[in-house]
Amino acid sequence: MRTYLECIPCFFNQAIRASRMVTEDERLIKKILDTLGDVVKDIPMDSSPPETGRLVYKIIKETLKNNDPYREMKRKNTEMALKMYPEIKRKVEDSENPLLNAIRVAIGGNIIDFGAQKTFDIEEELKKIFHIDFAINDFALFKELLNSTDKILYIGDNAAETVFDRILIEELNKLKKRVIFVVRGEPIINDAVYEDAVQAGIDRVAEIISSGTDAPGTVLKTCNKDFIELFNSSKLIISKGQGNYEALSGEASPIFFLLKVKCEIVARDLGVKEGDIVLKASDFLKRNKG
Amino acid sequence: MRTYLECIPCFFNQAIRASRMVTEDERLIKKILDTLGDVVKDIPMDSSPPETGRLVYKIIKETLKNNDPYREMKRKNTEMALKMYPEIKRKVEDSENPLLNAIRVAIGGNIIDFGAQKTFDIEEELKKIFHIDFAINDFALFKELLNSTDKILYIGDNAAETVFDRILIEELNKLKKRVIFVVRGEPIINDAVYEDAVQAGIDRVAEIISSGTDAPGTVLKTCNKDFIELFNSSKLIISKGQGNYEALSGEASPIFFLLKVKCEIVARDLGVKEGDIVLKASDFLKRNKG
Repeated sequence: MRTYLECIPCFFNQAIRASRMVTEDERLIKKILDTLGDVVKDIPMDSSPPETGRLVYKIIKETLKNNDPYREMKRKNTEMALKMYPEIKRKVEDSENPLLNAIRVAIGGNIIDFGAQKTFDIEEELKKIFHIDFAINDFALFKELLNSTDKILYIGDNAAETVFDRILIEELNKLKKRVIFVVRGEPIINDAVYEDAVQAGIDRVAEIISSGTDAPGTVLKTCNKDFIELFNSSKLIISKGQGNYEALSGEASPIFFLLKVKCEIVARDLGVKEGDIVLKASDFLKRNKG
Repeated sequence: MRTYLECIPCFFNQAIRASRMVTEDERLIKKILDTLGDVVKDIPMDSSPPETGRLVYKIIKETLKNNDPYREMKRKNTEMALKMYPEIKRKVEDSENPLLNAIRVAIGGNIIDFGAQKTFDIEEELKKIFHIDFAINDFALFKELLNSTDKILYIGDNAAETVFDRILIEELNKLKKRVIFVVRGEPIINDAVYEDAVQAGIDRVAEIISSGTDAPGTVLKTCNKDFIELFNSSKLIISKGQGNYEALSGEASPIFFLLKVKCEIVARDLGVKEGDIVLKASDFLKRNKG
């Protein structure tokens, strides 16, 4: 997905929100906005929003002189999510369609987002998620592809959301699927890096690898060679969240995008409404399988 | 009111909205945002938002090479408002408290705003306005001051809103009050200038003068000497809209602010909610009369 004009004020809003989480120094935050102002002219409208998000959060990290300002918050959120894990897992397993409901839960976890999401209440969200209809639901095609492969590349998004990814991965394991879980290469907002995935227990149910990116989305040109090779050879890729959707929606790959739609611009791009949940096969898949 | 950090992304959003009304050229709008980005570092946080608004709309005018991009839209909106005038006026006059309801209607007209307001439906707004309670209601103090003077300085805000200002001015005329209606000195977004006030028929019920400002709010240091003298000697000032509130809220003058609250920041500053309507005496008045 390309950058829209409306993404520019959104970057400023994200910078304010993300900075306020770690400092109350308004002058320091103003300095971040000043620097961000200077780079507006360097934002190409044909790049994807996470490419710019990468610059935005780099400015924040450099101005705050802190390479991982959300470390402690990520740890606490994961802890909180782990407390919810047993009940949510039981609810999924006891439901009529555990696989589809595990997808729902993994999407519900996607609201734990310090970037695009203004505020969130994860407990409330996970109560509701079992009763929400998908605005786009390519589950039939997902199951079809699932039958044709036993290896899944699962691109994670935020820390703590990873706990709910684990519930989906465990359902996939039950179907004898091997999962490779992908984390970011560098801390970027509250996106999951290696240790966040381990804290969520992903290491017990999947192999964890790093894409190498330092962007808040899987911007391929910022990823490492091993990941790109794996990405290109994968038969089934699960992409979690809005940042990964923005970065990967144009790729000719067998991707299923699982996300909660957090802004009007992505909603417009998908033809759905803000707040909707989506299980969408990539255009490439639709052309070849639909 | 000072500029808050959140005002900065809002200026970018306003620039996008205001530009989209007159051009579909995304590259031209991006150019406006680029220039706006460059001036972020020059925005002092202790200035009022209309002082920056002035710079923002200057960039728009210069980039679009059009000194009055909203001329035609203002004319059409005023025409539309004039068609609504007879019915609204009758409703005010037939009501139990025509003065208070004329204030309500004048505030209702305040949603005709191309800047802070995202979208508006003036007919809908004016239907509802008769039944909405004021979040701040200093009507008793207003009536008290009204009894002690026969001259009112009425600082207008947007074009077309002026038609509903006229209904309030006519109620004030019935009480034998002489009204001086203040317009901006230069076209700025859809704020009312002299010809907009005349089109609304204000010239028949009040004297019209220009404050001389080219800001979307009465930023005193940008106003002409005659207006400032008049402002300083006035016993009762009505200030319409958010821009005038932002510019004048700190002044030690006998002002009543009539506005619809259009953003979270002004809501926080006033201690009310976004969407609320307000009839607020200035702090100066409260100290001296309350």
